[in-house]
Amino acid sequence: MKILVVGGNGMLGRKLIAKLIQNSIDETIDIETITSVDVGSNQSEINKIPTQVKFVTADITNFKVCQQLISNKPDVIFHLAAVVSGEAESNFEIGYRVNLDATRNIFEAIRAESNHYYPRVIFTSSAAVYGGPFPELIDDEYILQPTTSYGIQKVIGELLVNDYSRLGFFNGIGLRLPTICVRPGKPNAAASGVFSNIIREPLAGQEAILTVSKDTRMVFASPQSAVDNLIHALNVDTTLLGNRRTLMMPGITATIEEEIQALRRVAGDKIVALIKESIDPRAQKFVENWNFSPFTADRAKGLGFTCEQSFEEIIIKHINNELGGEILGIKL
Amino acid sequence: MKILVVGGNGMLGRKLIAKLIQNSIDETIDIETITSVDVGSNQSEINKIPTQVKFVTADITNFKVCQQLISNKPDVIFHLAAVVSGEAESNFEIGYRVNLDATRNIFEAIRAESNHYYPRVIFTSSAAVYGGPFPELIDDEYILQPTTSYGIQKVIGELLVNDYSRLGFFNGIGLRLPTICVRPGKPNAAASGVFSNIIREPLAGQEAILTVSKDTRMVFASPQSAVDNLIHALNVDTTLLGNRRTLMMPGITATIEEEIQALRRVAGDKIVALIKESIDPRAQKFVENWNFSPFTADRAKGLGFTCEQSFEEIIIKHINNELGGEILGIKL
Repeated sequence: MKILVVGGNGMLGRKLIAKLIQNSIDETIDIETITSVDVGSNQSEINKIPTQVKFVTADITNFKVCQQLISNKPDVIFHLAAVVSGEAESNFEIGYRVNLDATRNIFEAIRAESNHYYPRVIFTSSAAVYGGPFPELIDDEYILQPTTSYGIQKVIGELLVNDYSRLGFFNGIGLRLPTICVRPGKPNAAASGVFSNIIREPLAGQEAILTVSKDTRMVFASPQSAVDNLIHALNVDTTLLGNRRTLMMPGITATIEEEIQALRRVAGDKIVALIKESIDPRAQKFVENWNFSPFTADRAKGLGFTCEQSFEEIIIKHINNELGGEILGIKL
Repeated sequence: MKILVVGGNGMLGRKLIAKLIQNSIDETIDIETITSVDVGSNQSEINKIPTQVKFVTADITNFKVCQQLISNKPDVIFHLAAVVSGEAESNFEIGYRVNLDATRNIFEAIRAESNHYYPRVIFTSSAAVYGGPFPELIDDEYILQPTTSYGIQKVIGELLVNDYSRLGFFNGIGLRLPTICVRPGKPNAAASGVFSNIIREPLAGQEAILTVSKDTRMVFASPQSAVDNLIHALNVDTTLLGNRRTLMMPGITATIEEEIQALRRVAGDKIVALIKESIDPRAQKFVENWNFSPFTADRAKGLGFTCEQSFEEIIIKHINNELGGEILGIKL
């Protein structure tokens, strides 16, 4: 199997590639090559990069770049590349250029090759495709009316996946990912960063600024669950999707207050005391675009996609995967 | 008020302009100029064209054309231009070029002028934004998952109206029009043409071919109701729309069988006998993309948008407006 990962140097891309390599070593997936393309410096966290992995630095807003990437006829294309929500909001043109136009570039490059070429395209969408006001429970038939440019660009991507798949240009499947939490490393420009910051920083002994009110509600899944679901999408029978190719993934709905309660149960009062409240009106306004009710995610669950059982489990996964199973030197 | 009608030579565009001129004469709308732009030969059905109406033949797939049209800073832009459903389905590239790219051209031309310029944009969407399977009743929160390229292009247009409006680039409102029935004149490439053909042709004493099965269901409104609702959109308080700027318009849901029954009640058996059944599998497959359940259209109704009360009323309007109130020389 030849795999192309578009946006391979993002947090999720790096973890996906590492897991794919592990699966190749374990012989659970037969991988011929993995090509990672990213506009930024394209380096892997992988210690020993196997020979079948290739890193390409290139800009998919250039159609010729996309043509070249697709000319190798990868069997699977993971399309993870995106300008994140905060940046798409503050820079209208870049948001549309990357999240809409570059997505079309990739899809059009595939369509141009589509004679005897029918790759699987795994598209990452986001819960940001939903916009309130919400009912108490959001089912799989709830209207997609985002209230951010990022969300709108993601719905458009989903719709294009539906159309290109329906017309046989590729075999698409989209995953509406919950907010990835706990997001490791430095904060990025995603407006949803605060939900991770207040867990990650205290667990590392650092103060974290809580910029939004405690009743703000979000839907979460761990980076591991996101990667597992992306890999699961490799083998989903897409004929079961009909013309609705993108699925809301399972996630844990929690308020900031509930996040903090879970952190207290896992790590204690001293860690929680590192969270300092200082509401930022701009951040507050942004997260109010979401404030999701719980999602049923029935379709995704029915097709075998999974997530954690509680926010505690999300925190414990972070401690185990990113902190060597320790909080400030003390074994969990 | 300076009005720009994009797609002004379509069936709806011509009727809209005629009605706007009438409203100007009646002094119910204060119109300074009307500019009609269309890619085809741009002639009006209006007998005496008032001096304030200007016809421009131009192609909005060219961004510079859009810039020029917007440089006059019209107060209102009716965006009616589209490649119809059948053509968008048979020609993928033209569908996206006109229905998506040219729509973006217009919106981008407005955004480029948006400093101290805030026109009202009235966008025509379509019930084709919905795709089955449907619940028994389709409310205003039902997911938009079209099963045609045309429908997908229309949802994308709606989403762009939401985003450009939210960001203050223009004051947008979208109308999801039911299938216009009875559509006067020659059939066009709209896949929904059959629903009008079986009424219009028999009423004119001509045979009509019924190409789809009698249990096929569609949602309808008259051309007059569509025009009235477009003009009503001039004065709707858009702050009431929130971030969901496009409204499903009220319509009459009926099967082909129910259309025929209504025709029989209005015009008698001899007229109905002119309908000859000859199922076209391609047309049948296309209309199966729709087969709508009834729509609540609650939001639109709450804002004063209206339609006919029955399919008979739709037929009678056609006879009165297009046939001088007569069926084959006999007064209705």
